[in-house]
Amino acid sequence: MAGEFDFIEWIRAQQMSSANAAAVVEFVQVPPGDDLAVLKWLGGADDLLLVGVDQVLDGVHFDASHHSPRAIGRKAMNRNLSDCAAMGCFPAAAVVAVALPKGASMDYAKELYLGLREAGDDFNCPIVGGDTGTWSGKLVVTVTILGRSGGVKPVTRSGAKPGEAIYVTGALGGSIRGRHMTFEPRVLLGRALAKLGTVSAMIDLSDGLSRDIRHICQQSGVGAVIEAAEVPTHDDAVEMRRDGHSPLEHALHDGEDYELLFTTAPAGEVSWAKRIGIITAEPGIWLQTAEGREALEPKGWEHSL
Amino acid sequence: MAGEFDFIEWIRAQQMSSANAAAVVEFVQVPPGDDLAVLKWLGGADDLLLVGVDQVLDGVHFDASHHSPRAIGRKAMNRNLSDCAAMGCFPAAAVVAVALPKGASMDYAKELYLGLREAGDDFNCPIVGGDTGTWSGKLVVTVTILGRSGGVKPVTRSGAKPGEAIYVTGALGGSIRGRHMTFEPRVLLGRALAKLGTVSAMIDLSDGLSRDIRHICQQSGVGAVIEAAEVPTHDDAVEMRRDGHSPLEHALHDGEDYELLFTTAPAGEVSWAKRIGIITAEPGIWLQTAEGREALEPKGWEHSL
Repeated sequence: MAGEFDFIEWIRAQQMSSANAAAVVEFVQVPPGDDLAVLKWLGGADDLLLVGVDQVLDGVHFDASHHSPRAIGRKAMNRNLSDCAAMGCFPAAAVVAVALPKGASMDYAKELYLGLREAGDDFNCPIVGGDTGTWSGKLVVTVTILGRSGGVKPVTRSGAKPGEAIYVTGALGGSIRGRHMTFEPRVLLGRALAKLGTVSAMIDLSDGLSRDIRHICQQSGVGAVIEAAEVPTHDDAVEMRRDGHSPLEHALHDGEDYELLFTTAPAGEVSWAKRIGIITAEPGIWLQTAEGREALEPKGWEHSL
Repeated sequence: MAGEFDFIEWIRAQQMSSANAAAVVEFVQVPPGDDLAVLKWLGGADDLLLVGVDQVLDGVHFDASHHSPRAIGRKAMNRNLSDCAAMGCFPAAAVVAVALPKGASMDYAKELYLGLREAGDDFNCPIVGGDTGTWSGKLVVTVTILGRSGGVKPVTRSGAKPGEAIYVTGALGGSIRGRHMTFEPRVLLGRALAKLGTVSAMIDLSDGLSRDIRHICQQSGVGAVIEAAEVPTHDDAVEMRRDGHSPLEHALHDGEDYELLFTTAPAGEVSWAKRIGIITAEPGIWLQTAEGREALEPKGWEHSL
């Protein structure tokens, strides 16, 4: 690449032309380009700070020889925005580290950044800092997201209670056919769910339903029964049955759907999401089919490309 | 590695046994293991949030075939703590992403984490979240640091004014001989300097003096004259003159010293740091030697291993 410092200059110029510049100026007191960015936080119980990090690796989460840098940037940011969705917070700011292969051009780096920024801009989430390095290795994009609770209690994975219904916000399976790069994070939906006050636990489906329901159950100290007939299967999952796995298997075990999986008390049941099961007091995760109950193992074939 | 989930379980157990657990519990409302960590921020002008990210790459910032995972972890965290030092804030929390080569053992990952945590513990900076992935590539460790201003205005790179003195907190050059892995971030010193109220600009020396003074000058809209005879050269720089470059050249251009470079008004001059030059109104960065003035170019031979 031409030079890391040229790229940083370019990024700084981009920031200035950002559409939401006025609001950002008040929030971001010291912009990218210093040792650290400085942000003004309201603070207190109404303005909790949420933070998490998520990296995408060439050959695991994307294929740099096939996917455009713009698409890779979007995915890297959207995975983090999806974590905000899962907590019911709104995204506030992000910092990005990029390890670029030595041969990458300045244009490549710019496209990557524009993908990251586009995805952030969809939710007024500015990129306030970064680190770019070149190396002999493959592309790594690491995004750290900061979220604000904004007066709504964050929804963790640990609040599910026996008798509560399990819901999912969309059809599952076969994301490897393309949706794993192009999904839209359910930020507004997650926020709306958290505001209800009746959603007791929530997670975004990145590892696959059979793994992610386990995270909720383990952290809540409960079990679950999933109704096989109720799990919504995506057209991509139907298309993929040619590989010998049924659409249901794909919906249960494929990763990277980025829909929200949540639990809610009977009083809080909703009509616009799909009810797929129930939380039980006994530990264990079961799949209920017409033939009976079987253990739902966390197969989740690795979503490597 | 045995399994990412086993590793996450182990990390969670580590957190609980942390020495500063009581203070952390109040601050960290939702610990690692959820979609995002939740932190309580006081907020307002007294509790500004500072954030930045910094990655270390195998073959660039360390050599995994030579350096221990513990040392690599320490360096990754210490580089970020050094950014806190440079702003005069105190470290509040960190999140860490690790891309592990496929063959790495669980013990290797644990040692890496312990190095990260040890370095953070030195400044009561807990690791509140993370992302671990394995891939066919080399080791990448990315740390995002959150800092608090805690009632002291952060010191940026942009406040240097003509007539002010330029200081450095320690001897420079030749860090490649080992100090680039083992340095101690000047967190307390940076904080003390920021509290003085007379320090106008500050940066930590990671790219090398000739590059880092340029960052201050460009962002402050000023120039600088560095007195060659005043630049403190480290024993390592003296040792390295065998490569044909003088100790001064090493002190000026080598990177990764992680000392602080700062500017201060005449009223704020200090005796315990080394005064190495002066800020000028005219742009341009000069080296003053016994023979006269020469342009100080940002050579900074790349600090690749």
